Amino acid sequence: MTTHQHSVVIQTRGRGSLEITSQVTAVIHTSTIRTGIAHVFVQHTSCSLMITENADPAVRRDLETLAKRWAPDGDRGYQHDNEGDDDMAAHARSVLTGSSVSVPVGAGELMLGTWQGIYIWEHRTSPHGRTVVVTVTGE
Amino acid sequence: MTTHQHSVVIQTRGRGSLEITSQVTAVIHTSTIRTGIAHVFVQHTSCSLMITENADPAVRRDLETLAKRWAPDGDRGYQHDNEGDDDMAAHARSVLTGSSVSVPVGAGELMLGTWQGIYIWEHRTSPHGRTVVVTVTGE
Amino acid sequence: MTTHQHSVVIQTRGRGSLEITSQVTAVIHTSTIRTGIAHVFVQHTSCSLMITENADPAVRRDLETLAKRWAPDGDRGYQHDNEGDDDMAAHARSVLTGSSVSVPVGAGELMLGTWQGIYIWEHRTSPHGRTVVVTVTGE
Repeated sequence: MTTHQHSVVIQTRGRGSLEITSQVTAVIHTSTIRTGIAHVFVQHTSCSLMITENADPAVRRDLETLAKRWAPDGDRGYQHDNEGDDDMAAHARSVLTGSSVSVPVGAGELMLGTWQGIYIWEHRTSPHGRTVVVTVTGE
Repeated sequence: MTTHQHSVVIQTRGRGSLEITSQVTAVIHTSTIRTGIAHVFVQHTSCSLMITENADPAVRRDLETLAKRWAPDGDRGYQHDNEGDDDMAAHARSVLTGSSVSVPVGAGELMLGTWQGIYIWEHRTSPHGRTVVVTVTGE
Repeated sequence: MTTHQHSVVIQTRGRGSLEITSQVTAVIHTSTIRTGIAHVFVQHTSCSLMITENADPAVRRDLETLAKRWAPDGDRGYQHDNEGDDDMAAHARSVLTGSSVSVPVGAGELMLGTWQGIYIWEHRTSPHGRTVVVTVTGE
């Protein structure tokens, strides 16, 4: 059993999701691990990580539509709005969708289903550099 | 330290949740691991995994009631509806509730609380075969 | 590679969130693990764990405001209300926000971002003792 850890900085383009499956796979390939778990973690509270459909980009547009209902920008109920209308909405979306994903590794590859991809979901409207820590544990 | 991995196919009956705690426990029992983590992952983007109350089935009926609000079927705001009214709703529920759960293992058993069970939550209205990958890491 | 596991009981004060980062860090420090994953799990279905902003407490007040919309207390649509108006709302919030969080460990410390903290989120209105299991795996 061994652990392999590597951080990657992802430059987002403002609100929206970007696939990072290939970056996670690259970390697994630089390790000797064949069977185990790949854990992916984002060190920020206004973006998140998710696994979703990798075929039709309309899925991720529709997720934005729903996220606006789950955590509206500039809601009058919010007390925290230091950094603008998208500030509290971003924290809430981060809590709802989570700061990490973890995927089994088998035969030295991510065991994702055919239609699954790993995405970073930027919830702020402006672009940010986001640090993602990938930790692979296994043998 | 060692890793033990096994896939299980769960046949769902259409929308609703099914307990899979015993299937996860069986994978732990076929390993020699006494202390560690059991990671459970579903290789699909229109169902999810959750830990919830295992006593009163009304809890899981009420979760369906709420899920209809979180991600309604056939919403006019959706662009993605290739496979019917439940298609985009299923992807959104999957993102909200997650593709994996992980539970500590102690004394060779899942360390669930008395009222906790592990469930696969089918979000499509028709039955599906769903592949669940269980990876147990520990010693 | 080794595994270190320890349970902590957190006394909540009723609905609201409490930071438990220092308790999780303490478990890592009592292990010899320098690189790996810290997995935190709560053995209950009416509270949850989350990672969110640790600076402005208004963020967590606003999360309560949103949670009331995601899963209202005493909703007329609920069938499960054995333990009062907050009963089903608590189960639903637990499913939405999750029973575990996991954070990479590097140089023997949690690799949280500057503004991230680990919180237990009590969803019942009355105080409870909540068992949290911390499992650290790594080398």
